[in-house]
Amino acid sequence: MSDIDKYFKNLTDREHAIFEGAVSMGALYHQFVGTPVSIESSQSLKDAIAESIMLQPAVVDVKVDFDMDLMKKAIGDMQYTSLDGNMLIIEITTQINDTKIVTCISYNEELQYPLMYVKD
Amino acid sequence: MSDIDKYFKNLTDREHAIFEGAVSMGALYHQFVGTPVSIESSQSLKDAIAESIMLQPAVVDVKVDFDMDLMKKAIGDMQYTSLDGNMLIIEITTQINDTKIVTCISYNEELQYPLMYVKD
Amino acid sequence: MSDIDKYFKNLTDREHAIFEGAVSMGALYHQFVGTPVSIESSQSLKDAIAESIMLQPAVVDVKVDFDMDLMKKAIGDMQYTSLDGNMLIIEITTQINDTKIVTCISYNEELQYPLMYVKD
Amino acid sequence: MSDIDKYFKNLTDREHAIFEGAVSMGALYHQFVGTPVSIESSQSLKDAIAESIMLQPAVVDVKVDFDMDLMKKAIGDMQYTSLDGNMLIIEITTQINDTKIVTCISYNEELQYPLMYVKD
Repeated sequence: MSDIDKYFKNLTDREHAIFEGAVSMGALYHQFVGTPVSIESSQSLKDAIAESIMLQPAVVDVKVDFDMDLMKKAIGDMQYTSLDGNMLIIEITTQINDTKIVTCISYNEELQYPLMYVKD
Repeated sequence: MSDIDKYFKNLTDREHAIFEGAVSMGALYHQFVGTPVSIESSQSLKDAIAESIMLQPAVVDVKVDFDMDLMKKAIGDMQYTSLDGNMLIIEITTQINDTKIVTCISYNEELQYPLMYVKD
Repeated sequence: MSDIDKYFKNLTDREHAIFEGAVSMGALYHQFVGTPVSIESSQSLKDAIAESIMLQPAVVDVKVDFDMDLMKKAIGDMQYTSLDGNMLIIEITTQINDTKIVTCISYNEELQYPLMYVKD
Repeated sequence: MSDIDKYFKNLTDREHAIFEGAVSMGALYHQFVGTPVSIESSQSLKDAIAESIMLQPAVVDVKVDFDMDLMKKAIGDMQYTSLDGNMLIIEITTQINDTKIVTCISYNEELQYPLMYVKD
């Protein structure tokens, strides 16, 4: 057992994987939303977000995409916009021992806001 | 069942409460760390953090404190410092139906960084 | 001359006051935009923003307000929203020796985005 | 005169260039400080910061570097750290008509904090 594992003995592996996925999702949202972004600069921002999340505890895979139609609409006649939570399409896979969890964020049409949830 | 509950049918109440506590903890860390703060302005920042977290899904109680000794040390001869993750002493209580979870952050001496964890 | 003044000898007092006002405006925008906020929690967030800006170099006065109509519209049927740059109505007064500058941000109808500028 | 220029008629070109450089410096500091970063992920974060700043008004050149010795020290035995203001070594060139200004941030040994200033 590594030094850190003892602090999570009160959680199942599944609960621990959910915990770490959710922390990372909340973190990236509030770290990166607001960043100036254009169509051209999107790739470098996606790369930086993905590499940053990959560093966090228990994260084993990350997929970062933006809703480019929404971004184009937000940019309009300007050169750029601010990264908005509604634009995020992200999946974070966390693993504790043999248990993997995929935590997602994407804009939910019914709720009309970006929903964070655990994939089936 | 409210509109949002159906998106969490794949989680137990306990898992869902852990998820929401962890999202809120990751969020507040990356939202507020870096804010200019002094001993005198600490209370207003604590209040704003607490009221902001209380708005998030499933959150029913929040306790926000800062390690004021660490803050004084960081301020030194200056007038203020930036809020550092090491200074945070926070507990977020989330509730789904009858299940409550307390998610915490505090500086861990052994690990030498601020640890986010679920209280027993 | 204080320790820090020598690093600004290449600026007039007016240029220096403009510099400090602009740094503080850019800083607060990217520090606080994205914070969960409701009508009820607005005051604590305004207070925390104001006290935080007051700490920064050369700042002698701060007025922080939010466009509450815009916030209500963003909240809609939900309990809260995220603080948006469009909602900010802020004035920061910076002073170097006898020269004062007022740096502002507010939503500009013509440009259709929140404009940062120096008041006449 | 473009739509936006009229809002800066009360500033000289030099004052306007100082204003835009300072806004961008304050913005990037509070947007990116706190991001999880490792030696390996540094380049993608530098690229994202540079491309993001290049989008902002009047910015014509950006140089982004991190103090890697300080980062290594902060990482210690761990896998990563949070980007700290002390690690930033950044130059932003802003231009209004024929006037260019270089706004910098770097750790100042004498003041013991990262100083934002205008280069001679």
